[in-house]
Amino acid sequence: MHVVVNAAMSADGKLSTVRREQVAISGPEDFARVDRLRAGSDAVVVGVGTVLADDPHLTVKDADLLEERIAAGKPAQPARVVADSQLRTPTDARIVDDAASTYLLTTEAAGAERRAAYPESVEFVTAGEERVDLLRAFAALAEAGIEDVMVEGGGELIFSLAESGLVDELRTFVGPQLIGGRDAPTLADGEGFLTEFPSLSLEDVERLDGGVLLSWTVEQ
Amino acid sequence: MHVVVNAAMSADGKLSTVRREQVAISGPEDFARVDRLRAGSDAVVVGVGTVLADDPHLTVKDADLLEERIAAGKPAQPARVVADSQLRTPTDARIVDDAASTYLLTTEAAGAERRAAYPESVEFVTAGEERVDLLRAFAALAEAGIEDVMVEGGGELIFSLAESGLVDELRTFVGPQLIGGRDAPTLADGEGFLTEFPSLSLEDVERLDGGVLLSWTVEQ
Repeated sequence: MHVVVNAAMSADGKLSTVRREQVAISGPEDFARVDRLRAGSDAVVVGVGTVLADDPHLTVKDADLLEERIAAGKPAQPARVVADSQLRTPTDARIVDDAASTYLLTTEAAGAERRAAYPESVEFVTAGEERVDLLRAFAALAEAGIEDVMVEGGGELIFSLAESGLVDELRTFVGPQLIGGRDAPTLADGEGFLTEFPSLSLEDVERLDGGVLLSWTVEQ
Repeated sequence: MHVVVNAAMSADGKLSTVRREQVAISGPEDFARVDRLRAGSDAVVVGVGTVLADDPHLTVKDADLLEERIAAGKPAQPARVVADSQLRTPTDARIVDDAASTYLLTTEAAGAERRAAYPESVEFVTAGEERVDLLRAFAALAEAGIEDVMVEGGGELIFSLAESGLVDELRTFVGPQLIGGRDAPTLADGEGFLTEFPSLSLEDVERLDGGVLLSWTVEQ
């Protein structure tokens, strides 16, 4: 399995405002790049906080990219995956609609009644008691044939994945604005690293949309 | 007056760990660049949080740069400035030693007794009742002949300066590591912007020390 984290952050490292309201950080060039990256993935993963804040659809938008996927024998859309320990994803969220398949990574704490409230097409991966055991959950995704994974945030999930050693690449678009806020979501939130900091290697730097795309690999 | 904010942040926008412990984000190339930037400034400014966390000296280290300053008729060292509403700077902090002149930007809330505890060489700029009025304080610095200002953090001060429209340029070294932590200091903390986000223009991108230096100007 190969995991690429992709996110757009302001010049000061924020994903959104302190109110978790989205900001137009990037632009059309970056949107097209993200769509291509999605189209090249078997699954697109987000944390439940992102679902609650943004209600994302996470589908590939470009018709040519969809056709390329179909021509390659893939499903038209990559699967969508939510890391959601307590199943807080609304049952009418766009991410559980029938535009693509959906996996909810959850725990034993999320009971049968809650699971039954979702559309039948939703598949559950149960790993962990109270918090999703990401290593086990991702291993289950790999067993389901998911090889190329794209993670689109938010900061809590990205930190947890980095902590678990599950991130292979990190692509950050750094945008031309300040958002500020000591409580605003950042690219990597969670408890933070204290001594052993995941080390990155800068593979590429590309200017686009008034900002810059930084492509890092994680040194394992 | 021309104000350049300079800071090193991790790939996820952190200045230090959640415990406010410094991390080696950049390296020798960036240190030399920062030393040159200091040497070209009339004053180097930090917030009191940075003084309490790091006890910085903020002096120019390179002997040639010091000689150039002297040859140009300047003081050997740029002045050091702390934004310190309540005068929490320790009286034995390195920043108030006799290696360079020091200004403490403070408020009427900081009484005469506390002021008298500092070395006689320290100058006080009083602006505001409880919080430093940065516009007035920086105007006072300008009247004292300070034209080129470099700000070295932390995130609370940088946010306040941006909020006051006092930042002309922003130079961020983005380093090859993740620090993480929802409570870790970032490049711009404070309350955060909610609707009107300071807009930046990317002037230059330079790879160094395994990371990248982004040079932005602030669109006023």
